[in-house]
Amino acid sequence: MSSTTTTRQSLEEIFAAACSHARKAAVLASVESLLGWDERTMMPPQAATYRAEQAAALALLVHQHRTDPVQAERLAQLTESSLATAGPPHTQATIRLLSRDHAKQARLPPRLVEALAKTCVGAQQAWAAARAASSWPDMQPWLEKIFALKREQGQCQLPDRDPYDALMDDYEPGAHWPAVAARFDSLRGQIVSLLQACMGSSRRPDPSLLARRFPIDAQQRFVRNVAAGIGFDFKRGRLDTTDHPFCSTAGPDDCRITTRWDECFLPTALFGVLHEAGHGLYEQGLSREWYGLPPGEAASLGVHESQSRLWENMVGRSPEFWEWCFPLAQQAFPTALADADAVAMQQSLMAVQPSLIRVEADEVTYNLHVMLRFDLERAMVLGELRVADLPDAWNQRYETDLGHRPPSAADGVLQDIHWSAGLVGYFPTYALGNMFAAQLMAAAERTIPRLDRQIAKGSFGELLEWLRHSVHSRGRLLESEPLVEEATDTPVSEHWLVESLRRRYGPGYGLKGLG
Amino acid sequence: MSSTTTTRQSLEEIFAAACSHARKAAVLASVESLLGWDERTMMPPQAATYRAEQAAALALLVHQHRTDPVQAERLAQLTESSLATAGPPHTQATIRLLSRDHAKQARLPPRLVEALAKTCVGAQQAWAAARAASSWPDMQPWLEKIFALKREQGQCQLPDRDPYDALMDDYEPGAHWPAVAARFDSLRGQIVSLLQACMGSSRRPDPSLLARRFPIDAQQRFVRNVAAGIGFDFKRGRLDTTDHPFCSTAGPDDCRITTRWDECFLPTALFGVLHEAGHGLYEQGLSREWYGLPPGEAASLGVHESQSRLWENMVGRSPEFWEWCFPLAQQAFPTALADADAVAMQQSLMAVQPSLIRVEADEVTYNLHVMLRFDLERAMVLGELRVADLPDAWNQRYETDLGHRPPSAADGVLQDIHWSAGLVGYFPTYALGNMFAAQLMAAAERTIPRLDRQIAKGSFGELLEWLRHSVHSRGRLLESEPLVEEATDTPVSEHWLVESLRRRYGPGYGLKGLG
Repeated sequence: MSSTTTTRQSLEEIFAAACSHARKAAVLASVESLLGWDERTMMPPQAATYRAEQAAALALLVHQHRTDPVQAERLAQLTESSLATAGPPHTQATIRLLSRDHAKQARLPPRLVEALAKTCVGAQQAWAAARAASSWPDMQPWLEKIFALKREQGQCQLPDRDPYDALMDDYEPGAHWPAVAARFDSLRGQIVSLLQACMGSSRRPDPSLLARRFPIDAQQRFVRNVAAGIGFDFKRGRLDTTDHPFCSTAGPDDCRITTRWDECFLPTALFGVLHEAGHGLYEQGLSREWYGLPPGEAASLGVHESQSRLWENMVGRSPEFWEWCFPLAQQAFPTALADADAVAMQQSLMAVQPSLIRVEADEVTYNLHVMLRFDLERAMVLGELRVADLPDAWNQRYETDLGHRPPSAADGVLQDIHWSAGLVGYFPTYALGNMFAAQLMAAAERTIPRLDRQIAKGSFGELLEWLRHSVHSRGRLLESEPLVEEATDTPVSEHWLVESLRRRYGPGYGLKGLG
Repeated sequence: MSSTTTTRQSLEEIFAAACSHARKAAVLASVESLLGWDERTMMPPQAATYRAEQAAALALLVHQHRTDPVQAERLAQLTESSLATAGPPHTQATIRLLSRDHAKQARLPPRLVEALAKTCVGAQQAWAAARAASSWPDMQPWLEKIFALKREQGQCQLPDRDPYDALMDDYEPGAHWPAVAARFDSLRGQIVSLLQACMGSSRRPDPSLLARRFPIDAQQRFVRNVAAGIGFDFKRGRLDTTDHPFCSTAGPDDCRITTRWDECFLPTALFGVLHEAGHGLYEQGLSREWYGLPPGEAASLGVHESQSRLWENMVGRSPEFWEWCFPLAQQAFPTALADADAVAMQQSLMAVQPSLIRVEADEVTYNLHVMLRFDLERAMVLGELRVADLPDAWNQRYETDLGHRPPSAADGVLQDIHWSAGLVGYFPTYALGNMFAAQLMAAAERTIPRLDRQIAKGSFGELLEWLRHSVHSRGRLLESEPLVEEATDTPVSEHWLVESLRRRYGPGYGLKGLG
């Protein structure tokens, strides 16, 4: 018995050492994240070259730390131990997931990690310049490098998997292309039907209210109040300006969101901030105690996106939300909104119009933008589409799926930063997130009594509490689909998103039968 | 001959490896610096705890890197080689200085490095609270710990030197207490004479012009233009807001300065920015090619301070400067400066008044604040003054040297963050910097034809070029005194500062004989 106790204790010591090692990697990764935030919000323009060296040095340190053979030994011992099968649930999951992560990382050659880090910094700067000049030739060689490196990464990290699945796995653990593609095909068909119905209707919402003049300084105060109103904690976060809005976490109490501003279109900043604050609420809701370990990490980017979309679209475009928000808006923009009311404001947000730019797309057509990127990037990873042929393929898909051919590379293939940032296999998580968001919101509405009335009063606490309990506090112990199924008590399906879109967008187009 | 060539080549390879190792440490140190900048400008309030972990992790990595035994071997080999005595001058100096730095770092026990890092984080937090509560007893135990640790650090890192000199060496390499003290004694006597003459005069400058209302947003545009005007490159730097202005470098093209704003006192921001931009011009003038190695590093903090003081005081308070700057100021503050002119503006800046707070002191009394701290900190390091007796000693010196006894600890011994941040041996560099600034400016005036007229036209290029050539481009190949002597072709002396103060401050007090 004394020997068992000793073994048991030393196992727990090994577990503690493994956790401490992983937390140390998280400390370094959080510094890497801060460098990335700074690069996109604060860094002087000429500092980019050296920033690439800094980012590469950090990435290498994080990688060295994450692939430390001593940690591999600890994890191997733990995996074979009773802790892995009979320990507390968080312990079991931590051992399993740290081992999985470690194996994936250890399979990447340091040369590749460094090359990716350096290439991505250079490519992002090149992207900004190429996009400004609308010059595809300036970007092509960078994307060729990136896709070659990413293909190699996929092949290295999960050699038994399809290389595109292996890349998706970084963002949506366990995602399989055939399953995702099948869901997307079904979703695409139903969205196209809804879109055709909307476009065929003679009735349509009038969005002109949103294009009045909304002074930027008033917007800044207004969106900050809205973000704080839904629960974003500014003592543990900040809001800054960027070209491409994002949410970045530099520690358990340091979540940074960004937006851009358009004086003549209020939704740019407002829904940008609702979206990023939705991500921020997830980050701020993760377990502080388990920070840097799987029980304190986000489940997947799809689940992350479900949180941003839930606040942006399910909450932020609802009539109830505008009962609360409109008086704030009118106070912020007394001239622009003098003759408006909450109903007109909310209805003006429900216009659907196929367009060229993903980040400006309405909620109905948005997923069409995402799904075509999913197809194109997979084809490039598999070598079925050459990077050189991307602009033609892109333009053709836009013409087919959205009825518009981009007049320029800036409005076409150069519009997103993702690929130049090495984010390949990332796009599908946007559409998955929209699906999860609709399914979660439907469950919240079933569970929380009079949720609509709470929202109308600006009381978001109970909804946030439900999300904290059902999603945030779960960390990444479950993969996204089991997590959403458990949270909603229903199988994952694109049905909820389609239903939500029909119910919310149909009426503005007189499509009552769809409601 | 072939064998000689081989030896020679492999020595150069060792040198390249040693440089690459040192540059890697500089990359990590630059990230540490960015964390520090972020902490003081951007970080959400509750993120401080985790930031301490991030900073400690980086500090440990930098220390590990700097004390790597493989690097020690390389440096030992190089020191004994022909490269150290017959290589190119930059190579010789690099070998000598990297070896010296490495030996100093390696003599510090890791236990001491960690204890210092942790104690300083705690002590700075305690300082902020103690200062807010004006409570010396809350600070005393922390300073006792700090001075004990710093004494040990001095004894470890340069065991053959006086422990206070060993600490000064971190900021002012090669500084010796007896020489500095003798210079300061002479300087103190001459400043006190000038001060008594000023205070005894019935004529004095009227500073009331500076206390009108200067809207903050106009100040922001104005000081940015002034900083750019003297040559600060905003493509390689930025300007932000903090409580305690500083200049921080996060890479060769990433120099960040900060300031604070006072709507009712223009000099706070203006001279804060001129000062920090002066530091920034030095950083931006260091060799990019040698970044991270001694030929690309600043010579000392005294030399650094000479650059900030030169632009702040020698240039920024001169009548010529205001010939150029006043129209910009009047444009920025049309109401406040409607009835003013360049002469009145410049004269309003030349008021002298002994006071209690170092950072608010005028240029004449400033060095008295510094020199008393120099005496007190040395006495504490040597154990001649107990930390417990510091407040009495402080108050007595203020009464003797500046004629005021601090009414509270907050306005007295708790006013500076330095000691709680472990910066012991740092204060004298402020007064040394003032001396170097005056000596350099006198040499620039002798060397550059019609420098005063160039300044009056806002042409600072030739002065900056002279500083780049004489100081910035020299890196830290020379210690500060030989550097200043070579740049000015005169021995280092307090004479230049005294002369400069008399010449510039005398007339406002009707002391023409001093001019």
